[in-house]
Amino acid sequence: MITVLKRNATAEQKEHLIGWLKAQGLDVHISEGHEYTVLGLIGDTSRIDMDLIASLDIVESVKRVTEPYKQCSRKFHPEDTVVDVGGVKIGGGNFAMIAGPCSVESREQIVEVAKCVKKSGAKLLRGGAFKPRTSPYDFQGLKADGIELLLEAKAETGMPIVTEIMNANHLPLFEDVDLIQVGARNMQNFELLKELGKTDKPILLKRGLANTLKELLMSAEYIMAGGNSRVILCERGIRTFETYTRNTLDLSAVPLLHELTHLPVIIDPSHATGISRLVEPMAMAAAACGADGIMIEVHNDPIHALCDGAQSLTPEQFDAVARKVADIREIVSK
Amino acid sequence: MITVLKRNATAEQKEHLIGWLKAQGLDVHISEGHEYTVLGLIGDTSRIDMDLIASLDIVESVKRVTEPYKQCSRKFHPEDTVVDVGGVKIGGGNFAMIAGPCSVESREQIVEVAKCVKKSGAKLLRGGAFKPRTSPYDFQGLKADGIELLLEAKAETGMPIVTEIMNANHLPLFEDVDLIQVGARNMQNFELLKELGKTDKPILLKRGLANTLKELLMSAEYIMAGGNSRVILCERGIRTFETYTRNTLDLSAVPLLHELTHLPVIIDPSHATGISRLVEPMAMAAAACGADGIMIEVHNDPIHALCDGAQSLTPEQFDAVARKVADIREIVSK
Amino acid sequence: MITVLKRNATAEQKEHLIGWLKAQGLDVHISEGHEYTVLGLIGDTSRIDMDLIASLDIVESVKRVTEPYKQCSRKFHPEDTVVDVGGVKIGGGNFAMIAGPCSVESREQIVEVAKCVKKSGAKLLRGGAFKPRTSPYDFQGLKADGIELLLEAKAETGMPIVTEIMNANHLPLFEDVDLIQVGARNMQNFELLKELGKTDKPILLKRGLANTLKELLMSAEYIMAGGNSRVILCERGIRTFETYTRNTLDLSAVPLLHELTHLPVIIDPSHATGISRLVEPMAMAAAACGADGIMIEVHNDPIHALCDGAQSLTPEQFDAVARKVADIREIVSK
Amino acid sequence: MITVLKRNATAEQKEHLIGWLKAQGLDVHISEGHEYTVLGLIGDTSRIDMDLIASLDIVESVKRVTEPYKQCSRKFHPEDTVVDVGGVKIGGGNFAMIAGPCSVESREQIVEVAKCVKKSGAKLLRGGAFKPRTSPYDFQGLKADGIELLLEAKAETGMPIVTEIMNANHLPLFEDVDLIQVGARNMQNFELLKELGKTDKPILLKRGLANTLKELLMSAEYIMAGGNSRVILCERGIRTFETYTRNTLDLSAVPLLHELTHLPVIIDPSHATGISRLVEPMAMAAAACGADGIMIEVHNDPIHALCDGAQSLTPEQFDAVARKVADIREIVSK
Repeated sequence: MITVLKRNATAEQKEHLIGWLKAQGLDVHISEGHEYTVLGLIGDTSRIDMDLIASLDIVESVKRVTEPYKQCSRKFHPEDTVVDVGGVKIGGGNFAMIAGPCSVESREQIVEVAKCVKKSGAKLLRGGAFKPRTSPYDFQGLKADGIELLLEAKAETGMPIVTEIMNANHLPLFEDVDLIQVGARNMQNFELLKELGKTDKPILLKRGLANTLKELLMSAEYIMAGGNSRVILCERGIRTFETYTRNTLDLSAVPLLHELTHLPVIIDPSHATGISRLVEPMAMAAAACGADGIMIEVHNDPIHALCDGAQSLTPEQFDAVARKVADIREIVSK
Repeated sequence: MITVLKRNATAEQKEHLIGWLKAQGLDVHISEGHEYTVLGLIGDTSRIDMDLIASLDIVESVKRVTEPYKQCSRKFHPEDTVVDVGGVKIGGGNFAMIAGPCSVESREQIVEVAKCVKKSGAKLLRGGAFKPRTSPYDFQGLKADGIELLLEAKAETGMPIVTEIMNANHLPLFEDVDLIQVGARNMQNFELLKELGKTDKPILLKRGLANTLKELLMSAEYIMAGGNSRVILCERGIRTFETYTRNTLDLSAVPLLHELTHLPVIIDPSHATGISRLVEPMAMAAAACGADGIMIEVHNDPIHALCDGAQSLTPEQFDAVARKVADIREIVSK
Repeated sequence: MITVLKRNATAEQKEHLIGWLKAQGLDVHISEGHEYTVLGLIGDTSRIDMDLIASLDIVESVKRVTEPYKQCSRKFHPEDTVVDVGGVKIGGGNFAMIAGPCSVESREQIVEVAKCVKKSGAKLLRGGAFKPRTSPYDFQGLKADGIELLLEAKAETGMPIVTEIMNANHLPLFEDVDLIQVGARNMQNFELLKELGKTDKPILLKRGLANTLKELLMSAEYIMAGGNSRVILCERGIRTFETYTRNTLDLSAVPLLHELTHLPVIIDPSHATGISRLVEPMAMAAAACGADGIMIEVHNDPIHALCDGAQSLTPEQFDAVARKVADIREIVSK
Repeated sequence: MITVLKRNATAEQKEHLIGWLKAQGLDVHISEGHEYTVLGLIGDTSRIDMDLIASLDIVESVKRVTEPYKQCSRKFHPEDTVVDVGGVKIGGGNFAMIAGPCSVESREQIVEVAKCVKKSGAKLLRGGAFKPRTSPYDFQGLKADGIELLLEAKAETGMPIVTEIMNANHLPLFEDVDLIQVGARNMQNFELLKELGKTDKPILLKRGLANTLKELLMSAEYIMAGGNSRVILCERGIRTFETYTRNTLDLSAVPLLHELTHLPVIIDPSHATGISRLVEPMAMAAAACGADGIMIEVHNDPIHALCDGAQSLTPEQFDAVARKVADIREIVSK
C-alpha cells in the first residue's frame, strides 16, 4: 500500500502516523520528495482500513498495490479452478450450457423443459424456487416445493440442478441441490456468504447490479475465506442509463476476471438483456470471448409461447442457440 | 396499468392476452387507435408481473399508473407518520439529531461520545456493533459486545440507541435496541426485511447505493406488509461517477419522499460524502430542504483526533454543526 | 403519444389541455377510466415537447408510442443501409476491419502502420489528427498536418481513411477524408451535427459516454434531417462504476441497434476497454453478435513496443485478431 | 506523479521507461520495495499522458499527486475570484439570484418576467435564445431574435442578461450579452471552450450530465488557459438511476468546488429536478451549503399557468423562494 502525504503535513503529524502504522505491524518505507512524502507500506496490508487512512487530513491519497483478495487471486493460484457440479466440470476449458425456466411452476413444466434442454446439450438444469422480488406482493416462488420438483426433474433426467438461496436458514432444503446460486441483490449479504463458506457446496455467485469486479471478487473471497473454494462467478448485467435493455451485459468481465482470478466465469444473457431476441447474439458473444458457461432461461408455458416473447426462449430457440454456441466454442478453443 | 399493443399484433393474439389478463381478475378497457391498441387494466394490478407483460412480443410498452406500493404511500395515508423511538419522536415536524461513532470500540469511548453529543443536542446515539465490510479480513465490529456497550451508554445517558442488524438470527440481541438499522447493502435483502416486518421495532431503512426511490419504498413496503409500520427512511448517498466524494448525497430525495410517502426521512451526510469537511454544509442543506433528522458520525479517538480528519467529526465540530442546523430549522419550520 | 391525466384533474383543466393539444394539430382520443383519464394523441407528435406536457401538474405521465426518430428508424426503411466509404462497403452483410494508430505522429509511422494492417485485411485506415483532450495542456494532435500525412498513407496504400472532426470550420480540411468521425464528447454537439448533415460525406458517429441508444439515434437523426443519410454508428464503451476497464463495452447495442435502425453498427474495443489484452476477446465477441465492422488501434512506436502494452496492438497482434475475427464471421454469416 | 511498476518488470524494461520519462524533462525518484518499484516523477507532469503510462504492461498503476488543473486551482490562487457581470458581483461572499424563462418567446413575455423577478430581488435575467434539443424536430429557440428580445428587456429593466451559446461562430451576436452560458452537453466541446477563452466575457460553465468535478475544472481550465479567467461554475444535476427526478442535484459539489477552486459556484435547481415543487427546497438547500448564486426558471405564459406545473415557477412562487433563500443566506453568512 502506498500513502502519499500532503505537502503541509508537519513532522510531528508524520511521526504520529508512521508510529501508528508500525504499531499495525507494517514496515514503512519513507521517500521524501520536494512536493510530497510517499510512504510505502510493506507487510499484510489486507487488514488495514484504507478508507480510514485516506480520510486523514494529512493524507493526499492511498493506493493499494496488492489487491485485497488473496484466495481467489490468480497471483496466488495460477492454474484454472475446475468446479465439479454433480459430475459436470466447469472451468479450465470445460464449458457448460445451463438452462431452465425462470420459476419452477409444476412437475410437468420442469420435467418437460429439462428433457428438452438436455437433448439440446444443456448440462445443468436451472429453475427458481425462492424468488427475490422487488415487491412483497409479487409471486415469491414455490419455495421448498419448487426444490422438490427440481429434484424430481433431476431424478428423471440425471441433470444436476442449480437454484437460488436467499436465507442461510434454508440450507437444509438445499442438501441435494448441486449448485447453489447467490443472486445479484445478495452479492453483498455478507452473513449469507459466510454461511455458504462453511458448506462444501459449489456456489454460483452473481455480480450485483452496480458492483465492480473487485467487489465481486471480495464477495467470492468471503466464501473462500470460510473454507469453500468451489465458487463460480456469473456476470448477469449491470445497471446503466440504457433503458432499451433491462441491464447492460458487461462481457469484458469475462477476459478480465480470467486474468484476475482462477475461478470459472459464466454469463447470463437472459437476465442481462431481458429481451429474448438478444439472447442468441449475446450467448454467441459470450462464447466468443471465452466464457466457461452460459445460463439461459427456457420456458414451455402457454402465456410465453402464445406471443413468442419474454426474456425466455422456447426449447426450439434454445436448441438453435446451443448449436451456434458450440460452433463458436470450436473456434475459441482451437 | 396501461398496456400498449404493437400495430402488428393479430386479433387472435390480442384476444389471448386479454383473456389471460381477465383471468388474473382484471377489468380490461380497450381503446383501438390507428397506430396502436391501448389496454387500460383496472383492478388490483399490484400483483401483476409488469416485466412479464412488457416482455411479450406483441406488447409495445407497459406503464403503471398507480404505484406498486400502498402502505407507505402518501395517497392512502395523507398524514405524516411520527415514529416514536424510545420516547424520541421523529417525523411530522419532529426533528432529531442522531450522533455517535462509526464503530463501538470500548465502554469509555461510547459513553464519552454519548455524553458529548447529548450535551450538543443529539437525541439518539448511533454506533456500529455488527459492521458490514467489503472484505472478510476487515474488522467486523464488536458484535454482541458492541450492543452491550451501547446499552451501557444508554443506561448512563438515557439516550435511545440505533445500531445495524445484518442477520435476522441476531434479533434476540436487539431486544433493547430502540431503532434497528438496515444498511444500504441489505436494502433488498428481502428475507431480512420480512423478519423485521414481524417485529414491532422502529426500523431505519437506508437506501441502497444504486437504488431508486421507488425501490426504497418497495423495501419499506416489505416491512410494512408484515405488520410493522414504524419505518424511517434514510438517504445516505448513491453511487455516481464522481470520485472526490465517496458517494453523492441526493438531497432532492427529501422533498420527493415527503410527497410520495408519509414516512419520516433522515439524512446521513457522513457516509454520503466520506469527508468530514463536507458534513457541516451538507447537514445544513439537509435541514434546509426539510429532513426529519440528520445522522452524523462523531468520534473521540486519538488516530482521528491527531489529524482532525476522517469522515467523523470531533465533539466540538459536532456541537458547531448542531447549532447551525438548529438555526436553519427555525427558518424552515416558520 | 399517450398522456395519462391525474385523478384530481378538473373538467376545466382537462378541456384547456385538450384544446391546447388540438391547437398543435393533433387528434385527441379520450378514454375515461375510474382512476384516470387516458389521452391518445394521434398525428405528428414528433414535434411535441414531451417534457413540457409531462411537467404539467394534472399529468400523471406521458409515453411516446412511436419513437421520435424517423429517418434512421428501421420501421420506415426496412432494408439495411450500406454505406460506401471510398469504395469499401459497410453494412448489409459487408464487414470491415478498421485499424491504425491513436494519433498520427509522422509520415514514417502512419505509412508503415497502414501497410501492415492492410496486409492483415484491414480495409480502412484510422488515425487521429485533431485530438479531443480533457486537458488543455495535453497533446492536441498534428491537426492539418496529421490529415496531410493520412492522405499520403492513403496515396501509398489505396486505403480510404477515417479521422475525427471537432469543429465544423475545419470541414475544408476534410475534403479528401473518406469517413468523418464525430467523437463521443461531440455526440450532442448539435451545431456540428447540423453542419455534417449538409455535406455528402460518410459520418462515423460515436456514442457518448453516458448516452442512451435513443439519444445516439436522435443524433444520427440530426445528420439525416440535414440530408446526409450516410451515417455509421459506433459503440465505444459507456461510463459505468467499473474501474478496471476505462469504459464498459455495451455489445448488446449491436443486435439492438440492428433492430431499431437500418444504419451500420461498428465496435471500437480499443477505446472501450483501454487494455490491449482485452481487444482480441472483445473483437471476437463483437463479430459474434453481428457487428458490421471493428475499429482497432494499432501502433508501431517504440514506447509502446518496448513494453508491449497500452490499448494499442502491435501489427502482429492485430494480424492474429483479424484472423480470429474472420473465423467468427464465417460462422455468423452462415 | 507516482508510477508503481509491477514486480515482474525486468531491469532492462525499467531502464527504458525511466530513460523515456527523463527525456520528457522529468526528474525520476526511484524507490525499490520488496514487492514493487515506485517512481516519483518530479517536474511539469501536467503535460504527461497518464493514460499512456498506465497502459504499459510493466506498470501496475499511476497516480497524479498534483491535480492537472492549475489556473482554476485554489492552491495557486487562494482568494475567491469575484466575477463582475455587468455590474453584478458573483463570488467571494457576493450572492446573486438569476431568473427568467426557459425560452425567450416574445417581447411581452421576457419584459414582463424580467420586471417581476427584478422586483423579487433577482439580479440577472436568464432566457434561452439558442436551445440545445435532443431532437432536430424540437423547437430550437428564437436564436438571434431571442437575443434581441433579451437586450430589450435589459434596456427596460437594467438587468444584465445570461444566455447560452452553442457555436463559436455566433459570438458576434453575443457582444452585448453579459454572461455567456456553456450548456451541459457542450462542457467538453473543447473547440468552443478555446474560442471563449479568447474573449473577455464572463462565462457560465455548466457541468455535464455524467461528468466529474475534475472534468468540469479541466473544462474551466481550457477557458482560462486561453486568457479568460472570468468563469462561473454551475451544478445543474447529474445523470443517475433515479427516475422520479430528471437528474440528481449534487449539492456536495458546492463546498467541494469551493475547496478545489477559487471560482464562484452557482446552482440550477430547475433543470436538476425538472419538477417545480422541488425548486424551493433545493434552492434553500443550495443557499444553506454556500452556493454563490441560484438560477431559477420563471414563466408567465398560459399553458404553464393553467396547470401551475412544469419545472418553471410563477413569479409569485419565485418571490416566495427568493425570500426564503434570503433568510437562509443570513444564517450562512453570519
